[in-house]
Amino acid sequence: MAIATNTVNISQGPDPKTSIQNERANSKFDPVKMHYFLEGSKERAEELKSLMQQMERDPVLFTDASYYDLTKDQQRALTAVKINRVSRYLEGDSIDTFNKRLSLIGLFDPQVATRIGVNLGLFISCVRGNGTYEQLKYWALDKETAHIKGIYGCFGMTELAHGSNVSGLETTATFDKDTDEFVINTPHIGATKWWIGGAAHSATHTTCYARLIVDGEDYGVKTFVVPLRDSNHDLMPGISVGDIGSKMGRDGIDNGWIQFSNVRIPRFFMLQKFCKVSREGKVILPPLEQLSYSALLGGRVMMVLDSYRMIARMSTIALRYAIGRRQFKGDNVDPDDENALETQLLDYPLHQKRLLPYLAAAYVFATGAVRIEQTIDETLSDLDDAVDQNDDEAIMKSIDAMKSLFIDSGSLKSTCTWLAAEAIDQCRQACGGHGYSAYSGFGKAYNDFVVQCTWEGDNNILGVNIGKPLVKHVLAIEDDGKVVKGSSSFLNNLKQYTGSNATNVILDNVADLNDLKKVAKAVEIAIIRLAHQAATTARKNSLDYVGAELVTLSKLKAHHYLLNEYVVRLERFEEKDLIPYLVSLGRLYAATMVLERFAGIFLTFNVVSPSVMAALTSNQIPQLCKEVRPHVVALTDSFQQSDMLVNSVLGKYDGDIYENYFGTVKTLNKPSNTKAPYSGALEAMLNRPSIEERERFEKTVETGEILSR
Amino acid sequence: MAIATNTVNISQGPDPKTSIQNERANSKFDPVKMHYFLEGSKERAEELKSLMQQMERDPVLFTDASYYDLTKDQQRALTAVKINRVSRYLEGDSIDTFNKRLSLIGLFDPQVATRIGVNLGLFISCVRGNGTYEQLKYWALDKETAHIKGIYGCFGMTELAHGSNVSGLETTATFDKDTDEFVINTPHIGATKWWIGGAAHSATHTTCYARLIVDGEDYGVKTFVVPLRDSNHDLMPGISVGDIGSKMGRDGIDNGWIQFSNVRIPRFFMLQKFCKVSREGKVILPPLEQLSYSALLGGRVMMVLDSYRMIARMSTIALRYAIGRRQFKGDNVDPDDENALETQLLDYPLHQKRLLPYLAAAYVFATGAVRIEQTIDETLSDLDDAVDQNDDEAIMKSIDAMKSLFIDSGSLKSTCTWLAAEAIDQCRQACGGHGYSAYSGFGKAYNDFVVQCTWEGDNNILGVNIGKPLVKHVLAIEDDGKVVKGSSSFLNNLKQYTGSNATNVILDNVADLNDLKKVAKAVEIAIIRLAHQAATTARKNSLDYVGAELVTLSKLKAHHYLLNEYVVRLERFEEKDLIPYLVSLGRLYAATMVLERFAGIFLTFNVVSPSVMAALTSNQIPQLCKEVRPHVVALTDSFQQSDMLVNSVLGKYDGDIYENYFGTVKTLNKPSNTKAPYSGALEAMLNRPSIEERERFEKTVETGEILSR
Repeated sequence: MAIATNTVNISQGPDPKTSIQNERANSKFDPVKMHYFLEGSKERAEELKSLMQQMERDPVLFTDASYYDLTKDQQRALTAVKINRVSRYLEGDSIDTFNKRLSLIGLFDPQVATRIGVNLGLFISCVRGNGTYEQLKYWALDKETAHIKGIYGCFGMTELAHGSNVSGLETTATFDKDTDEFVINTPHIGATKWWIGGAAHSATHTTCYARLIVDGEDYGVKTFVVPLRDSNHDLMPGISVGDIGSKMGRDGIDNGWIQFSNVRIPRFFMLQKFCKVSREGKVILPPLEQLSYSALLGGRVMMVLDSYRMIARMSTIALRYAIGRRQFKGDNVDPDDENALETQLLDYPLHQKRLLPYLAAAYVFATGAVRIEQTIDETLSDLDDAVDQNDDEAIMKSIDAMKSLFIDSGSLKSTCTWLAAEAIDQCRQACGGHGYSAYSGFGKAYNDFVVQCTWEGDNNILGVNIGKPLVKHVLAIEDDGKVVKGSSSFLNNLKQYTGSNATNVILDNVADLNDLKKVAKAVEIAIIRLAHQAATTARKNSLDYVGAELVTLSKLKAHHYLLNEYVVRLERFEEKDLIPYLVSLGRLYAATMVLERFAGIFLTFNVVSPSVMAALTSNQIPQLCKEVRPHVVALTDSFQQSDMLVNSVLGKYDGDIYENYFGTVKTLNKPSNTKAPYSGALEAMLNRPSIEERERFEKTVETGEILSR
Repeated sequence: MAIATNTVNISQGPDPKTSIQNERANSKFDPVKMHYFLEGSKERAEELKSLMQQMERDPVLFTDASYYDLTKDQQRALTAVKINRVSRYLEGDSIDTFNKRLSLIGLFDPQVATRIGVNLGLFISCVRGNGTYEQLKYWALDKETAHIKGIYGCFGMTELAHGSNVSGLETTATFDKDTDEFVINTPHIGATKWWIGGAAHSATHTTCYARLIVDGEDYGVKTFVVPLRDSNHDLMPGISVGDIGSKMGRDGIDNGWIQFSNVRIPRFFMLQKFCKVSREGKVILPPLEQLSYSALLGGRVMMVLDSYRMIARMSTIALRYAIGRRQFKGDNVDPDDENALETQLLDYPLHQKRLLPYLAAAYVFATGAVRIEQTIDETLSDLDDAVDQNDDEAIMKSIDAMKSLFIDSGSLKSTCTWLAAEAIDQCRQACGGHGYSAYSGFGKAYNDFVVQCTWEGDNNILGVNIGKPLVKHVLAIEDDGKVVKGSSSFLNNLKQYTGSNATNVILDNVADLNDLKKVAKAVEIAIIRLAHQAATTARKNSLDYVGAELVTLSKLKAHHYLLNEYVVRLERFEEKDLIPYLVSLGRLYAATMVLERFAGIFLTFNVVSPSVMAALTSNQIPQLCKEVRPHVVALTDSFQQSDMLVNSVLGKYDGDIYENYFGTVKTLNKPSNTKAPYSGALEAMLNRPSIEERERFEKTVETGEILSR
């Protein structure tokens, strides 16, 4: 061979890990301390890390890229094995520790977390929310459900033809006075319980949402514990259950359908904190019905935390990739330097703008998640105490707190899950073709996560339900001079910012963009003015007519909450050397996720001046990105998510993208196997005889002559 | 039993099919005629329908919900069987007919279409674009590739460390003068060919993009045909191939990696339309290098059509569901009427706003897709003629046309695929929980489709490459008084709309919103002013610095093209009774997809006044939705997509949502199988002994006493 490859000046192979390691070596702050900020405290952060270490070392719970190759049936079976394993930890965990554990599992194997969460979260929450203390104790503790032992609960709320409209459910629970039983029945196909996680294969009991019928009168939807399977795991008579089959994601969850055919349960299986039927069939009606649907609240709050963790995980992958990956020679490369490396993706301002706002969102969401979690813990505990002590005043106070919690958790759940879903997909796109590999982690993350936008309060329905009270408040202020209380009390400033004052610009100076309090104020005024316009339109038409505005109001309300909490948190945070980085992230979040994203609203309602908005796009955002850029490795390392948790060939800590990726591909898809099992079909196709031969030469010129004679 | 269920007034089951059938019966126009509009002509529409009928009846190609249950291995094998079947149709199809067939297959089984498309589209396009006529004839016809027979081609462009930057690829093709061969080599891991569709199991040959090295000099990336497998389908020596494994979607495609270890090919395997190496090693350099990368253009144009068909399919599902599904009682229901049915989802203005813009987009995209397809056919044919005839003037003219085609196809490809991907997910969300069922069709549609945003020109990279010339034009107009030609010639009006004229509002009257030409004009001015701002910023910084603006410019350019083509088409369309519906859709598209979506731009640059924008949101859009609402069944029926094509339990023509859905679930997941294969694991967990027993009573009080003695 005259020409050997080593005579040609071939470029060196890529070296992504040096890029990331150099940037890590130049970090200006300690990611471990930043992690304390993210998780709210040192204690919490350290407990989370020790839980993670425990699970990472666990032979059953450990997860790697092979997870992305599992079929539905394999996922189902493996999920069950993992639940069994988790149940052992549960026997030693406090509830608080277990919730932390579950939140982490939710990140690296959400189907395990969900399948457990349906049992411990929804089933037990439903019993807690609707049952007496004794009922809770019986079903959760005496029966050992809380340890995933003895019985396994599912949550029988949604039906084939009814999801969000819980009060329209059609399953019936008819009281039979003669036998002191309820008869649970599915009257028609539309009332078939549907989507019930755990029903297909796991659950032994369900909390069944059904219309209480006594003496022919319909008392609306109440909750009942209905056994589905006996201790031998065989279906009870009258219970029909099936698997609802393949899903977009979370195939490891055995979602099922349930039909009840006159299934009889004892009267005391009704959950009766708020509603009772006496032996004689007298219905003691709920004085506080709105409290009986609180089973979903905990899940909504948890989803804010899930959103933070998911965005953290996804942006860790995309940003590590963007630091290791090089493409083209950008404007930052000397065009005369032939030996210059290609530009790191993250040195392109466009790439910064595509990704850094999500990094910022993770930081802002983390703060909001910790805060709303504290709030729900306090509120539910106060409510339980008030109800136990029959303290009417305390109950009313708790109801007010619950209303605020409903608004805050609903607007946050919908806004944060939407943004997290978007972040997953945008991070995937930012990794180009490689983001489409299952082993990058994005595909399954997206497919598993997006259901969070739909379940436990569909995001649009939640948005409408959060927007409506805001608009109704405006109507009541205008009509009755009502004074609004709680977190929406800023609406009382209605007159100050609408009518002849509708042209007062709030942000009319570029410097205002750096003031997070001013931006939060701008969001407040945008809410006031948009709610005012929606109220005006609704007067002429209806509240349904302004549905789109209601959803926008809910989103702005969430951003208002998040910005304010972030500012409060920064004011109290004691690690002063970390503050500058956190301020940059907060400003970037405000600039991109709030001001630019809702630019149409801010400009239409004169909240931000056009020149400030122009400066935002052309200068402020690129400058903030530039400010954050050098700290990206440290800021993502601060999430302290281990390689197992991140589970992506593109996003490992060492940054050795190509070796990691190729190594995984070769391990999971042995290159020796070069002929596919179906190769015969391909070979038969390629080597098939000519069409003339396959047509038995019946259409040839010669045949034509014979047949034309 | 004293209380039988029939003594209780239980509501009737849902009856979704009557809702849809009633609306269909009230249709005001003929969907078959509307289909002619969508597909460009009666002839084309009818040919498409007959192809669809042929494939729907075909026992191999027929697809139903069971498709959504297939594992990766099953998808791979089934795809091969289908390709074999399609190859038989191909032997009888004209190229034009076959392209139509493939476009339809791309909708109901995209992995079949892609696996064929890589061979016939990319491989042959690459040979056509880069090879001589004789080379094309040899590889495509004499070898029978064009009939998927004899050989099977793949497209060896992207590498592990290089995607979009084609000229940075690192595989080498070194000329060995002694043997008159090229030596193809993969110098390092980063140069491993990656993502190569068909490489893992199918392809016998690849068009390999590699750096031409002659006498130690690097002439840049050229193309070569390299055999991978022999006629027995065994790998050639020096060729290493592997499966890149699981993906987010399209698991039926055998994407693979290829490494070449000094693989020798004859000199005449180089594709040499634009570049030749003589026997003596003299390199005849390409005079027109930019023409040699045109293999991707056809795919980009096809993706505009794909986007239309996909949005049509998805909106058909979501809108049929929204008509059959009822939820809550909205403002349109008399609150005193206890027997009133719940409100159809689509009667909520919010739901209309969520879905109808996509319906409108399908109509607008259809028009653009037909137009750009005509353009590429003409342009490529002119170019081939010009090159064959060595007609320099004609070649230069073709290059200008190619430049326009690059701009138009690139901006449309990126803008339309992004919107289609979004539409799939928004349509899914609009179907609530049921949208998450695999059998709804959304999940696989999304996972399969989104790669279109990345491949064959990453959307962001395309956006930058389309935005850059616009900004450069502005700079050249300012600096050199350049006159811009072609479809961006409106930039010549720069001075008229910037500087002291920057405050001229284009849409300052609500009535303007109904004038599609005025809206198109507003888009034009927005492009001018944004490009002008970007140019100003780029002078201070760099073009990379305004990357985000470049992508926005590309999107606006696509909408400008689409709106203008839609207006032209309506002016020429002869079925006058259909025009009013098409005008409403066009206005809705302009209002939502263009004006509201880019409100920040339109307001920042004074193109639309704040009051017009306020009216757009609060009045114009809801009114347009209301206008379109009664015709939704007819407008979706007009897509003429059969149940097989739509393949969704939620979106069948008969509208019998619940029966269709439950029937499919029960057929594919037999309810008799109530104990899962892994049930033993669950039972063992639930019935496990107490923790004390499992710990062998070593921690009991009694043990404590013993061990403490």
